[in-house]
Amino acid sequence: MASTLLSRQLALSLQVNLRLAAPGCRYVSKAAHKTQVDFEYDGPSMKTQVPGPHSLELTKRLGEIQNVAAINFFCNYEESRGNYLVDVDGNRMLDIYTQISSIPIGYNHPALQKIMTDPQNVSAFVNRPALGILPPKSFPDKLTESLLSVAPSGMARVQTMACGSCSNENAFKTMFIWYRNKERGHSTPSDDDITSCMINKSPGCPDLSILSFMGGFHGRTMGSLATTHSKAIHKLDVPSFDWPIAPFPMLQYPLEEFVRENTQEEARCLEEVEDLIVKWRQKGMPVAGIVIEPIQAEGGDNHASPAFFKSLRNIARKHSCAFHVDEVQTGGGATGKFWAHEHWGTDDPADIVSFSKKLLTGGFFYKPELQAEKPYRIFNTWMGDPSKNLLLAEVLNVIRRENLLAEVTRSGKALLQGLHELQAKYPGLLSRARGQGTFCAIDVCNGDTRDKLILTTRNMGVYLGGCGDQSIRFRPSLVFKEHHVHIFLNIFNDILAQHK
Amino acid sequence: MASTLLSRQLALSLQVNLRLAAPGCRYVSKAAHKTQVDFEYDGPSMKTQVPGPHSLELTKRLGEIQNVAAINFFCNYEESRGNYLVDVDGNRMLDIYTQISSIPIGYNHPALQKIMTDPQNVSAFVNRPALGILPPKSFPDKLTESLLSVAPSGMARVQTMACGSCSNENAFKTMFIWYRNKERGHSTPSDDDITSCMINKSPGCPDLSILSFMGGFHGRTMGSLATTHSKAIHKLDVPSFDWPIAPFPMLQYPLEEFVRENTQEEARCLEEVEDLIVKWRQKGMPVAGIVIEPIQAEGGDNHASPAFFKSLRNIARKHSCAFHVDEVQTGGGATGKFWAHEHWGTDDPADIVSFSKKLLTGGFFYKPELQAEKPYRIFNTWMGDPSKNLLLAEVLNVIRRENLLAEVTRSGKALLQGLHELQAKYPGLLSRARGQGTFCAIDVCNGDTRDKLILTTRNMGVYLGGCGDQSIRFRPSLVFKEHHVHIFLNIFNDILAQHK
Repeated sequence: MASTLLSRQLALSLQVNLRLAAPGCRYVSKAAHKTQVDFEYDGPSMKTQVPGPHSLELTKRLGEIQNVAAINFFCNYEESRGNYLVDVDGNRMLDIYTQISSIPIGYNHPALQKIMTDPQNVSAFVNRPALGILPPKSFPDKLTESLLSVAPSGMARVQTMACGSCSNENAFKTMFIWYRNKERGHSTPSDDDITSCMINKSPGCPDLSILSFMGGFHGRTMGSLATTHSKAIHKLDVPSFDWPIAPFPMLQYPLEEFVRENTQEEARCLEEVEDLIVKWRQKGMPVAGIVIEPIQAEGGDNHASPAFFKSLRNIARKHSCAFHVDEVQTGGGATGKFWAHEHWGTDDPADIVSFSKKLLTGGFFYKPELQAEKPYRIFNTWMGDPSKNLLLAEVLNVIRRENLLAEVTRSGKALLQGLHELQAKYPGLLSRARGQGTFCAIDVCNGDTRDKLILTTRNMGVYLGGCGDQSIRFRPSLVFKEHHVHIFLNIFNDILAQHK
Repeated sequence: MASTLLSRQLALSLQVNLRLAAPGCRYVSKAAHKTQVDFEYDGPSMKTQVPGPHSLELTKRLGEIQNVAAINFFCNYEESRGNYLVDVDGNRMLDIYTQISSIPIGYNHPALQKIMTDPQNVSAFVNRPALGILPPKSFPDKLTESLLSVAPSGMARVQTMACGSCSNENAFKTMFIWYRNKERGHSTPSDDDITSCMINKSPGCPDLSILSFMGGFHGRTMGSLATTHSKAIHKLDVPSFDWPIAPFPMLQYPLEEFVRENTQEEARCLEEVEDLIVKWRQKGMPVAGIVIEPIQAEGGDNHASPAFFKSLRNIARKHSCAFHVDEVQTGGGATGKFWAHEHWGTDDPADIVSFSKKLLTGGFFYKPELQAEKPYRIFNTWMGDPSKNLLLAEVLNVIRRENLLAEVTRSGKALLQGLHELQAKYPGLLSRARGQGTFCAIDVCNGDTRDKLILTTRNMGVYLGGCGDQSIRFRPSLVFKEHHVHIFLNIFNDILAQHK
């Protein structure tokens, strides 16, 4: 099947993309040409407004089955390739949002198609096991080959889970169990623990807390939602826990002009963290763990310095709280390193690192001392899905073989430079260009203009996402190359010029 | 590939299973012979104790990566067929636990293998979409063909999710949002709602509760865990909510001898439910929804009468609480009807029905009035996995084509009759045989003996699971036929005879 696709692809790549060949105000002076033969299209190609008539029709149909208020458009995944997402109306868009940052190496990568067409792999897809009791024989090998080959420093243990929220929920439970075992001095619960927990009461269900940050996003199930503070719409009407919430540094850009202010801002936040830990201990709800994203993503692409994270990690250690780094969105290579926390330059970044999205499977790495001793403490029916590990192992092969982290660093540099140039050109419209690798963002003057710009850009063939109140976030896959950067910059520049 | 497997299967089926041919004390008078040509083995075949040496070696290896305290043994899923699970030591067991009740039509069903080898389906497996914003073009069709074709009475709306816990968490959120919208009289939150929810405070994060039942199991993430009360080990050390917990009827068996007692017991529980609803309303934590399993599974296979459930549903209606029936374990046909609640004989069984396991995808059906109007209220990155819908659609085809619900009813009758006969034969050992379809259970005199019996039976080639304090639960797949029942009964009878 892959060969059929390849020959069709070759035919398609012969087509000239008329839109891009048309004259117009182009970005800076760089041409958008390809530097190598890719398994994908030459550029965007738009046939209708998005959503087009076929998308609208399908949205109406789906609306009879479920809530469709968030639907953007319907996709033709069979025809999508690499960085290009094709919709049901035949529009082909350069995808810089990649299913909310979850497609690691582009659409229909031939290496992944090959995994699917290998008869040896069929069983992994049709017999989903209860991994916690009956793992397949290849499971230790596949974990070693996939997740362990990218284990964060100091963490040789990993537990898979189904999704990001579930990974964070189980990471929280791991920290709570670890904390209570420390308090007890051992892992065997008292009779009082056992009796009280059955009716949701302390000491069995203890008054412990997780410290999180304003602007953070850790998921939408009730435990992880209690640590999410990015947008009201996620949290409204859902009961929650009285857990401490610290401010996350709001850095001023460009960083080099606000060194003193930003250092002060980070110090203020760290001080507040310590105050909250003390306050909640006094309230009788000790902080068992601190959870933080290396870059607050959904909350608006908020960055902090390596020094901030290293100090925070020390504060956790000082107060005997576990330190949980949530890399659900940042993990998997988009920052130019496999984990965003690698940019901190420390070999003891965390006690727990959770992941999902680009890793295809959810889960979390953890230090040996955080492992719950007894069975069925961290458990559920599926505990992940080995078919996702199979695909992940191949994704990691591709990342290594094609040296994609270096590619991301290169494309990211071009993207950030382009964003800086655009914000210099349109100062009333754009500001705060920031990023690491291709994990970039830029602010628009206000939320409405941001939303309009995203829609206009989509209609011109580039699919972007928003985050925070007024930011555009860039979340291309790892096969986003310099020539894709220039395709985007050219189109975006045209739009901004008309917006002027 | 399916054809290669088929020919290998034919060769295997020619082998005589020596163990079953050996003389011995057989169960009653029925022979364990097959009534049709199945795509599976002739019977169990044991080569080592379970876990065997290869399983132990792999467990040790996996123990260096994660907690292995719950591992039973490692499996060779490639060699497993139909009702037979093959382990890495070459032991072939009749599987009556099916990955904690989650394999719908046996291992490696040819129809599912065919789905995997169809090139048209490759894209669904390698391009996992963010379903809430960018669904594939086939999504409405696949939902109609799969989940909607088995929608519970009164429910034409369905939302997919990744797993059972996540389905229940989102069902709870749906009920909270619905309840608050009713309180407000509309779906638009106040400024106070918006501000307070960002810091986990009321009224934005309201003091609402979910009423659950002692012995119930609804999952292990923090919201669903607050409604789980089956075993302490699941709940220990995890903070929880102060939500009301009602008693679940503890019926006495045989039912026909305890009609009056059981009626009284159910009335007592219903009264307690109403008292708790009033009490929690007075406490300022109104009950937004009631969650219950049609048969408490993990908690010990506790049944209640259709009259009980119909009265409970009326109580929910009377007090304006949503009624959520959790069919994660009972759904999918094992009770002889597709949903266990169909046995209640009412066309308005619930406001929400959640599912997972045998349905391969998680999710929940809901009444139109429970749909959150705005976008991003019930949302996450993946919101299920269309590749699972693809497999589910084929599972449902097989269930219809092979008339498996009738098969389940037939096998279930034979199983329950056999269990009754065994408990009559071994009254000091077994009691309370109960069940619906093949969703059966029997109690053993105590927990230790139950555990020993399960292990002995496993070593004799039948894999069973426990539930509650001292029950054995039967959770075969839907292709478990009468001759499989007799294979089990014969082996189990031998073991009980030796135990005597």
